This record gives sequence, C-alpha cells and structure tokens, in this order.
Amino acid sequence: MTAQPDTEAQATPDKPELTRRRLLGTAGAAGAAGLALGAAGATGVYAAVAGPDSGSSPALSTVGSTEVVFHGKHQAGITTPLQSRGHLIAFDLAPGAGRKEAAALLRRWSATAAELMAGRAPAADTGVALDAGPSSLTVTFGFGPTFFDRTGLTARRPVELDPLPPFSSDALDPKRSEGDLWVQIGADDALVAFHALRALQKDAGSAARVRWQMNGFNRSPGATAGPMTARNLMGQVDGTNNPKPSEPDFDRRIFVPAGGAQPWMAGGSYAVVRRIRMLLDDWEQLPLKKQEQVIGRRKADGAPLTGGTETTDLDLDKFGPDGKLVIPDNAHARISAPEQNGGAAMLRRPFSFHDGIAADGTPDAGLLFICWQADPLRGFVPVQRKLDRGDALSPFIRHESSGLFAVPGGPDRGEYVGQRLLES
Amino acid sequence: MTAQPDTEAQATPDKPELTRRRLLGTAGAAGAAGLALGAAGATGVYAAVAGPDSGSSPALSTVGSTEVVFHGKHQAGITTPLQSRGHLIAFDLAPGAGRKEAAALLRRWSATAAELMAGRAPAADTGVALDAGPSSLTVTFGFGPTFFDRTGLTARRPVELDPLPPFSSDALDPKRSEGDLWVQIGADDALVAFHALRALQKDAGSAARVRWQMNGFNRSPGATAGPMTARNLMGQVDGTNNPKPSEPDFDRRIFVPAGGAQPWMAGGSYAVVRRIRMLLDDWEQLPLKKQEQVIGRRKADGAPLTGGTETTDLDLDKFGPDGKLVIPDNAHARISAPEQNGGAAMLRRPFSFHDGIAADGTPDAGLLFICWQADPLRGFVPVQRKLDRGDALSPFIRHESSGLFAVPGGPDRGEYVGQRLLES
Repeated sequence: MTAQPDTEAQATPDKPELTRRRLLGTAGAAGAAGLALGAAGATGVYAAVAGPDSGSSPALSTVGSTEVVFHGKHQAGITTPLQSRGHLIAFDLAPGAGRKEAAALLRRWSATAAELMAGRAPAADTGVALDAGPSSLTVTFGFGPTFFDRTGLTARRPVELDPLPPFSSDALDPKRSEGDLWVQIGADDALVAFHALRALQKDAGSAARVRWQMNGFNRSPGATAGPMTARNLMGQVDGTNNPKPSEPDFDRRIFVPAGGAQPWMAGGSYAVVRRIRMLLDDWEQLPLKKQEQVIGRRKADGAPLTGGTETTDLDLDKFGPDGKLVIPDNAHARISAPEQNGGAAMLRRPFSFHDGIAADGTPDAGLLFICWQADPLRGFVPVQRKLDRGDALSPFIRHESSGLFAVPGGPDRGEYVGQRLLES
Repeated sequence: MTAQPDTEAQATPDKPELTRRRLLGTAGAAGAAGLALGAAGATGVYAAVAGPDSGSSPALSTVGSTEVVFHGKHQAGITTPLQSRGHLIAFDLAPGAGRKEAAALLRRWSATAAELMAGRAPAADTGVALDAGPSSLTVTFGFGPTFFDRTGLTARRPVELDPLPPFSSDALDPKRSEGDLWVQIGADDALVAFHALRALQKDAGSAARVRWQMNGFNRSPGATAGPMTARNLMGQVDGTNNPKPSEPDFDRRIFVPAGGAQPWMAGGSYAVVRRIRMLLDDWEQLPLKKQEQVIGRRKADGAPLTGGTETTDLDLDKFGPDGKLVIPDNAHARISAPEQNGGAAMLRRPFSFHDGIAADGTPDAGLLFICWQADPLRGFVPVQRKLDRGDALSPFIRHESSGLFAVPGGPDRGEYVGQRLLES
C-alpha cells in the first residue's frame, strides 16, 4: 500500500519525558523536535519532524524520531504508513480469567503502548529499546470472536465477527489462527518492535497466554526513492488499488460509524489476518511474461497490462491482436478489482514474512496479509470468494492461518482501548 | 560493535548501470551520487553519499544509496558497519559435485554478488529488490572444514579449520552447524537482503544443497542518534571492546597475512558462527542490579561498574565498600576482557535473531554470533574456554549451533572469490 497518514489522529504536541533520548545527551534537540504527529489530514502527506543536530551529538533521523499518537478517533497502525518491522501476537484468556481480568489487562496494555509509542520506557524495562527514538512504533489491539463468551459479553459480540466462510484454497492451521485477543506491533526499528513485543507479553501476566506469534517486515524507509507502493516477496507491486484516506468514502468503508448495533465499535475496524505462504520455488520458475499474465500487471512498475502507469485504471475489456483479453479472465488484478466486486473495499496493510526454510526444503515465506474494513462481508469476503473460484495466482499461494478481530476505536485521553466494551 | 569501515576496500568510483534506479526516473541523480564507497581508512568514518533530490522525484536516502564495494583486499561484510538485516546460509556440495562444480559455483556467486552489491539486477531476476538502491548490501563467502576433502583439496585445508574444542555449555544441533560452504548476506533493507538470498540460492543450482539458513537483524540506521555500539536482545550494549580498524594491530589480529602456510587465504579471515539462544524469560526476571553484576557493565550506557563511560577501561582490581570486587570474578566483561586472555582479539559482528516462540513457549531469540579473527585458536577459542568455565552469563544463554569457516581474501577485478584456492 501507499504510505498514508492517520487521517483523524489527534495532534498532541505535548512534551513527553524523553527518557531514552536523555541518555544520549540530546534531550534538548530531540525534546523540542519529537512532537507527536498526526492530523496530516486529507493531503496524503505524512509529516515527520527530525531533531536538529544538537551540535555535540548527532540527532535521531526521522526514522528514529517519528512518533505516532496513541490516543485518537482510531487506533494507530491502521492508516499509519507501512513500517519496516512487525510482530503479530494472539493471546487466549487464561482459564478462570474473565471480564475483570481482561479489563485490567487492556488497561495495562494501553498504558504500556502509550508510553512506548511516545518513546518512553515502562517500569522494570528490559532496556532493549534504550538509545532509540519511538521509530514510528504503533500498537493495535483487537478482540477475537471467542473473547465475548469468555468474558460474559456475548450480547456485545458484533455480527461482523461471525466466522468467515470456508474457502476451497484454505489450508488453515487452527493453532496459528484466531485467538481471544490480538496485538499488532509495527516500528521502523527491529529492536524497538521486539522491545514492545516483550513488554506487552510481560503485561499479559497470568491473565492471558500466547496462542501464536508471527514476525514480518517491509521495506526500510529511504531504501527506495520517495514514497511508493510496496513490493511483496514475489516481486510484485502490491497495494496499488488500496483506498486512499483522501477519498470521500474512505472512512465509511474502513471504519465503523457511530450509531451502529455495537456502540463500543464506533471508530473501530475489522481486521482479517492471514498467513499467506508463497510457493516461491514454483513462482520463480514462471517466466516474467507468464507472471505478468497471472497478475494482470507489469512487474517492473505495476502498470496494468493494458498500459499506462501503476495508477492507471485496468482496461478490462481490451483485446489483444491475438483476439484474447489483454488482462486475462483469471488475472489476479481483474478478479480483485473493486469494480468487479460491487465496490467492495478493504485497506490492505501487510507485512512480508520469512521464517527460513520449511521442513520440505522450500522457503517458509510470504505475506502476513492484514486487511481493514468496516464490515468483512463487504470487504474481504466477496473479494476472497471470487479469488477462490478462479484466481490464476492460487496455485502459487496457500492460506495457512486466519484470524478475524474487532479492533475498537482509539482511546480518548485517560481511557484504555476497549474500555467502552468492558466497562459500559 | 561500533560501525567500522572496510579499512582496505578499494574505492572504485566507476559508474554502474543503475538499472533499478532508472525505473524510478532518478538515474541522473542517483547515477551521479551512487559512487562506490570504501577506503575510509583509519579515520573510522564511514562516508555515505546521498543522492540529491532530482526535483521531480525524491532521491534515495543514504539508507538506499550506500554501496559497499565487492572487489578489494578483504571481502565485504567483515568490517562493514552492522546492517539492519542479515541472512546466513550454509550449503553442502551435492553428491557428485567436486572441485570443478565448486569453482563454477563460486564464479556464478561472485558475479551475482558483484551485480547485486552495485544495485544491479541479475538476469532472470525475481524483481523483489526493484526500486531499491543497493542499501549497503554485502555478500561474504566462506569454506567449511568439510569442503576440502570433497573437492580433492585436502592439502590446502588450513589447520585453522581444525575442529573447535567442545565446550561444556554447548548444546549444538549438527543439522544447523557447519557446512561445506557458508554465505553471509547483510543489507539495510529486508527486501534487498531477501532478494540476494534467493538469487544466490538459485545460483547454487544442482551443485549445492542448502544445509541450514538463519535470519537476523540489527538496529535501523537513524533509529538512534549517531553511530553507537549495538544492543542485544538482553538489552546490553554489546561490542564495546571490539578491536578498531584504526588500531595498529587490527589487521594482524583479524586478517590472515601474506606468506602463510595457505597462500590462498592471504587477506582472508576465519569466521566462527554460533546461534546463541538467550533464555530471555529467565534473564528478564533478574533485577537490573543483578543483570549488571552478571555483565560487569551498566545497562543504561555500557560503562564498567567501576565507573566512567562505555569506553573506559574496566578496573578489574577495584573493591567496593563491602570488600568485594566491584566487577565480580565471574562477570562476563571481566572474563572476556582481552587483557584476561593474553590479548586474544576477535571482531564480533553479530545479528540478533527472533524466530517467534519455541515449542516450549519461550522466545526463540538471541544472537547470531559471528566473530572474525586471523586464527580461531588465538581469538574465539581462548575466550570461549574461559567463559565456559565461569561466566555468570552462562545460565542465561545456550549455544545451539556452531560453524567454522575459512573466508578468503577479497577478489581482484576479474577474479572470483576462492579462485586462488580452486584454480591455483
């Protein structure tokens, strides 16, 4: 996806105690510059404030100094630009833990996330992120379908969490799927991300147990020229057709409006999370031309096979001199095009993953697919149904896990994530 | 370790075809700026040339545009500053493959590495690194002890490759240890590193099979203020006592001199590679004060417990008011101090690793320890012997794999890595 701002995050230019930065003797420079970011609005420009050189010690670059706000209408990590490092972790409530313990956990987690995202260290810290700035850290919390019965909140379970339909190409591992609670961590520094993962795991204490955990990555800021759409491990430009926060119907498609059946979800979103293994040994044997026909776009620049640039609309009715459709009937880009799916829209915000070599000798690599929508039945489901029937890409991928999570709106100051569910 | 330049790499300010960059329409800017780097010499300053803004399209930052030279006295990836992403991969020659096939493989690998490190794409490319600059990519090749018998080169096997002695704290997995051939890949962008890994794996063809493969990471450039010593996943500053290329005996300690028993190793170095698991659940339960006594240094800034700053010498004879040594007898920093080991010196250049959660529920995380020396018997072995006997850190770590590799000198132009071994 193209990097996009948190459209409605609140700018909070307060001055946190820049504990980490003080260690470097650059508190003055970084303190003045390390303003919380957000409210970039509809311009699509994500502003980052670099600390000026303090004279005696080089300041953090924007990579380190960029801070994403924790409080706001929506949680961070949904419209935040892709980060170079990510961790996904799902927990199940421990036996005996219920609503009270869950509320206390979300309160602890929210406090820790707010501190870490502001570049401060929590109490009894491991020290792993010492020296580093907040590095665009985001922490995002969600509730899985099983959470509600376990906490006596069955009546507040959104219908949007009804199970996803089965897809014929699914090969799901239940041990790596679903979960009562889900946490997404992203940052532009691997140690900052790992530090947050450990801190949040520690917070879980005896209230919740890790169900599964996955690691991912994206391109490093500055490795390419300017903001551009990401590539996946197949080498394809991936995310071109993502809705843009500047589009008038973006909020309606991605975020749950106020006044719905579950008031606690106002400003929230639903995340579909899938570990999609790429069968790279097979894919890489396919000649470039065949790969491009599978996708329907040129590999070099992501432009449709019918011409133009990456952002040119697909010409789905164009025939070639051979009398065949230029973008084949089963091309991935055709089948997943919003206009082919009744305008269904989801915001894809993935991480790539690479966990070395699997037991069968093939690379255990692919995409931690994460998509966001106001309603999975109008976002992920219709698109995946069509892909499941005839996507030319299917033979080269395998959906290995699946999770569906209700991600509530962002907390107000003094509030914790999920408080409107757990305490109202 | 502190980031250090390739002290004797040759500056080669030629102008490669900037294939990837052309795709961005920034060939002018990047072409002029993307000079190969090196020859920073004894100043310890690693210069990076950023592409100026071309006006129409933002240029690569130094993260993307930094290029490390492939040809030179030493291979890249030894004194190159730590990169944010790394892959280690070991191969065994396929049954039936011998010296001829090995020579052809090293020729292919060298050609690919030279292209990729210059930011160019090889033929039949996967496209994963398209758009990105070279991003400080390095590829380093080594030969394991078993390589020589398999290629009929037994007489050229250096005695330095004799098996490391067993250590009582070792819990080595042979399947993840050793190997005929070893490749280290590092880059400041995860997709650039992955791209190189796949390209080199493909080059192996039918000549060699993957034996094991590991992924690692370090801090992102810019996440901290200025160059500083790295931290590991225990939160400790790690690498303070690394020898510096500016020190007069650096070359003698790290690189094999000309005129030795194996002339083909002139300019080369020996790498000891160990996957060191950190028992983080145990470590993180230890109070800060106890952690600092285990290490002998302060966690916040890496200074010795006897005072000063990170670079202050340890005062090994200082007693506290309680009559005890301030840096305890079994403190890691005391035992591993060069002055306690007859001046033994190795250059540690690790990556952290985190492969999720192990079957026992603990984090599968730690250090991909890589150390470089002219002779393992005067570098790694004496230090590890002492640590093995009485290091206070031992209960918190586990050596899970081990490899020892002869890494020949860097190739001249027109030469491939290992040619002096394989063709003389």
